[in-house]
Amino acid sequence: MASYEVKLLGTLLSPFVIRAKIALNLKSVEHEFMEVGIFAKKSDLFLKSNPVHKKMPILIHGDRPICESLIIVQYIDKVWASGPVILPSDPYDRAIARFWAAYLDDKWFRRIRAIILSQGEEAKKAALEDGIHGLVLLEEAFTKCSKGEKFFGGDKIGYLDIALGCFLVWVRVIEIMANVSLIDESTTPQLFKWAQDFCVDDAVKDVLPETDKLMEFVQFNYVAKLKSRL
Amino acid sequence: MASYEVKLLGTLLSPFVIRAKIALNLKSVEHEFMEVGIFAKKSDLFLKSNPVHKKMPILIHGDRPICESLIIVQYIDKVWASGPVILPSDPYDRAIARFWAAYLDDKWFRRIRAIILSQGEEAKKAALEDGIHGLVLLEEAFTKCSKGEKFFGGDKIGYLDIALGCFLVWVRVIEIMANVSLIDESTTPQLFKWAQDFCVDDAVKDVLPETDKLMEFVQFNYVAKLKSRL
Repeated sequence: MASYEVKLLGTLLSPFVIRAKIALNLKSVEHEFMEVGIFAKKSDLFLKSNPVHKKMPILIHGDRPICESLIIVQYIDKVWASGPVILPSDPYDRAIARFWAAYLDDKWFRRIRAIILSQGEEAKKAALEDGIHGLVLLEEAFTKCSKGEKFFGGDKIGYLDIALGCFLVWVRVIEIMANVSLIDESTTPQLFKWAQDFCVDDAVKDVLPETDKLMEFVQFNYVAKLKSRL
Repeated sequence: MASYEVKLLGTLLSPFVIRAKIALNLKSVEHEFMEVGIFAKKSDLFLKSNPVHKKMPILIHGDRPICESLIIVQYIDKVWASGPVILPSDPYDRAIARFWAAYLDDKWFRRIRAIILSQGEEAKKAALEDGIHGLVLLEEAFTKCSKGEKFFGGDKIGYLDIALGCFLVWVRVIEIMANVSLIDESTTPQLFKWAQDFCVDDAVKDVLPETDKLMEFVQFNYVAKLKSRL
């Protein structure tokens, strides 16, 4: 068996692992994908590689681990600099892409998750409103970032495409489970179109999990585990 | 009065504003510092420039606002690229600096603040233990990052120095208020020495607030406001 110089540890049920995987695909980096369940007992390699957070994804390059999905994406962009550019090269565009990516992780995904995780209708309704408000902000950001092209990153998938796109199947699952509409043609027409283009991109299409598979995981495992921790 | 191309909005009582100010100093960027109180009513310029978070610091370059302290530091590093380098140029060193900077913001500073903000002795003790544990991890990180030099960034102040150093007066205030020891010569001897070197650096020394002034703010304003929101 070939021993790869690059390994990615995690599962594609995790949106954060999806980010790293898409970045590797964009740059055509040969790598070994080492499947690790979200709630599975972690291997010694895993724990040794991310002793602080004990979280996926972990990229191992040679014998050096890199953790945290957006840091991994930036690392891949810098190391395999000859491939397509992931971060915008203009400093201001780069700052704006980083701003929205941080917003997704610090605020938006928590609110989206809360649509199915919160206790009580009031809390769920508030989470839904916040989640949709965030998408409206991102719709506006799309106009500025894409400059008339298909993606936030222009004519090719870039940093913010990866940062948001990794959540698309999660969004779909939450839409079905909570019987709500998040990304739709009337409220966020540009994101609606963007999502379609993103999902069929060569670097993405085999990475995103099937909706049914993710739904099963979320319904029977994720929600129960997380609620027990609340 | 000269109209500056670069404006920084905030107060140096905020560790996050300190980051932006130090980065501007390192690069010798002429700028106007527009003082904004942490709990003061925000100006139209402020709210228009950061409508999403309504938080400081905000850097305005020309007429374009950049928000979020670490994003601002990276922006400054990229735009004024001819000055001293802030982010490590090696991709792995860069990823490690980003990892610890994110750790500070996502985990560590919350725990450190909880030493004075938590209700009950149990919670305060747990926060203190977490805070010190974080510093021990950072002491280990210092050995790897500094490579025998004075700073995380080597012989000059870099990204992680700024990310951690901005909290030093806050650490001192919390040490005094809670009568605890956080960065000391026995537990974290390298950080202890690093902190001394950091505080007297030309880019830093006039930026950090006086301990008494910050203490007064934290005691009579910050703690009361934050507790009322808990």
